[in-house]
Amino acid sequence: MDALGRVLSESIVSDANLPQFNRAAMDGFAVRSSDTRGASPTNPVFLRIGRDCISVRTGMAVNDGYDAVVMLEDATLREDRLEVTAVVHPFRNLSRIGEDVAAGDLIMNEGHHLRPPDIALLAALGISKVTVYSKPRIAIIPTGGELIPVGSRELEPGEAYEINGLMAELYIEKWGGVPLRRCIVPDESRLIRQAIESELDADMIVLIGGTSVGEKDYAPRTLADLGQLLVHGVRIQPGKPTAFGIVEDKVVICLPGYPVAAFVDLYLFIRAVLKKMAHLDDAVPKVNAILSRKVVSRPGYLSIVRIKIEGEAAVPLMTSGAGILSSLAKADGFIIVPEELEGIEAGQTVEVTLIE
Amino acid sequence: MDALGRVLSESIVSDANLPQFNRAAMDGFAVRSSDTRGASPTNPVFLRIGRDCISVRTGMAVNDGYDAVVMLEDATLREDRLEVTAVVHPFRNLSRIGEDVAAGDLIMNEGHHLRPPDIALLAALGISKVTVYSKPRIAIIPTGGELIPVGSRELEPGEAYEINGLMAELYIEKWGGVPLRRCIVPDESRLIRQAIESELDADMIVLIGGTSVGEKDYAPRTLADLGQLLVHGVRIQPGKPTAFGIVEDKVVICLPGYPVAAFVDLYLFIRAVLKKMAHLDDAVPKVNAILSRKVVSRPGYLSIVRIKIEGEAAVPLMTSGAGILSSLAKADGFIIVPEELEGIEAGQTVEVTLIE
Repeated sequence: MDALGRVLSESIVSDANLPQFNRAAMDGFAVRSSDTRGASPTNPVFLRIGRDCISVRTGMAVNDGYDAVVMLEDATLREDRLEVTAVVHPFRNLSRIGEDVAAGDLIMNEGHHLRPPDIALLAALGISKVTVYSKPRIAIIPTGGELIPVGSRELEPGEAYEINGLMAELYIEKWGGVPLRRCIVPDESRLIRQAIESELDADMIVLIGGTSVGEKDYAPRTLADLGQLLVHGVRIQPGKPTAFGIVEDKVVICLPGYPVAAFVDLYLFIRAVLKKMAHLDDAVPKVNAILSRKVVSRPGYLSIVRIKIEGEAAVPLMTSGAGILSSLAKADGFIIVPEELEGIEAGQTVEVTLIE
Repeated sequence: MDALGRVLSESIVSDANLPQFNRAAMDGFAVRSSDTRGASPTNPVFLRIGRDCISVRTGMAVNDGYDAVVMLEDATLREDRLEVTAVVHPFRNLSRIGEDVAAGDLIMNEGHHLRPPDIALLAALGISKVTVYSKPRIAIIPTGGELIPVGSRELEPGEAYEINGLMAELYIEKWGGVPLRRCIVPDESRLIRQAIESELDADMIVLIGGTSVGEKDYAPRTLADLGQLLVHGVRIQPGKPTAFGIVEDKVVICLPGYPVAAFVDLYLFIRAVLKKMAHLDDAVPKVNAILSRKVVSRPGYLSIVRIKIEGEAAVPLMTSGAGILSSLAKADGFIIVPEELEGIEAGQTVEVTLIE
């Protein structure tokens, strides 16, 4: 049961047959099918109980001597004989040994995502252990001197609860990773550097906050100092002040501190990397809907528009407003306006990614 | 964090403002916007540091006296003065108190399904507890004298591992219920009766096995004895020997023992009831694909055809074969052929329900 939702890192070949024996598929009488040749209501065949036939229930093992089961409605007990009024062909109402799975069959390939019926099949075959890919371990490091842990105490002026790390933790777990949420690090290069260095045993590091161009943008600068800063700034709105880099072969992604921008990056970048690392399919749930109002977007930028679904209509909520977290709570999903457009007209069909 | 995935049983009104104070949205200098009137690179305005303006960082509280923030690139420090070379309008680069959520705002309605950004918003507002609907508790009672618990020991001839209860448990948990998987009950009316009676404190009872018409069909008969047997037999293939009833106001669903039939019933009946009880949306993930081969079905029956998705193609695996569990492990999903049809031609677009 622990393997549910995991991905096989090995192919599975069955040692066993399923069923392990010829099995009655109906309540009735096991017979040799050849004995029923010509049987009909007007020309019944009589079989000796215990020698030519035997009473069976669905699921019971059927002795090798018999190759079919006569249903109850086609048979009547007459003292020590069974009156059979229908022909049965070989293997009628009988599940043959190995019919479902034969010993030696390849039943699941490496990369198979284990769902409940898969676990049931493994269990039916007596396979109690399989090898799966490990879940990517993703360190989450929130930064910002103004932040205090969620629920720790009342806010003083100038403070805010650290909620992006919380959101990242919930999504990383949901998407098949192991989130390692760390303490809030103040905006000091030395401390951010230490925080990154102490998480290099994780599979990926997500640093949150301190990414925009300004006096306090420690995250990308620290990344450049420690390893390689590959990208700083992406043409996505919201989500522009995003940075990627590599430190000692580990991917480090820096998310903006604005919650909607952090959300967008979680969906567009973290989810994709995580699903790939976990060998999971990264298809997101989507629905088509008709845009109820014109949306204006910034050319040259991928624009993420929060959407409320109302029947067949996609009602746009906000394009800008990276700080307006409540707009996500109101949204059912989002659309992505391509960078070559200046917007999308009302009445167009749009593909809405549903917020999980 | 425990509320993730749960459904609000109350509407949430915020007591707090978000932000709780006017907050700098940029690194720069907080100013009175009126002081910058007419400012330009050729006609700068000079402001007294600490009196007319104050240095701020993104996220910092901005004193009530100031109503905008001048960005760093539009300002230069000249000893005790700040040279400002651009006009800022009121609330420029400033997040106003209550801009995201104002005290008294309805932020989420009863029935809202809590996703990570919703939990983040609640946390940002300092709301650490909400009331959610309880998860439906669903008792699972496998029946059948030939069954032994999964993994307990090697199978003897005529035995099988009890895997339908396992599959039901995994799906009920996945779909938002609390599965209560009980011991295997032998096919004896008295024991099945006792098993049902002792689970009447659950929200629903799922009885597995012993549903087909034959000498051993204890499940529906026991249901009729104890309460009301409403349905016995449905026109679904596989899944015909299904029964529903009510005992002391509790829904009892009897699933066939054949694993594919049990799977079909889990999807078509248990999932629907469970999602409704849990106040959850019961939309299933679906994709459109093109049927690669003709499918023949039995008129008058809803036929469930197991499908493998290969690119754009829906490749049918099996229509019959209620006992062939491996066909589910090979399937990505299934299509439902309506009862008025005798099948579906190759080349038709079909809607494939993806197996979760």
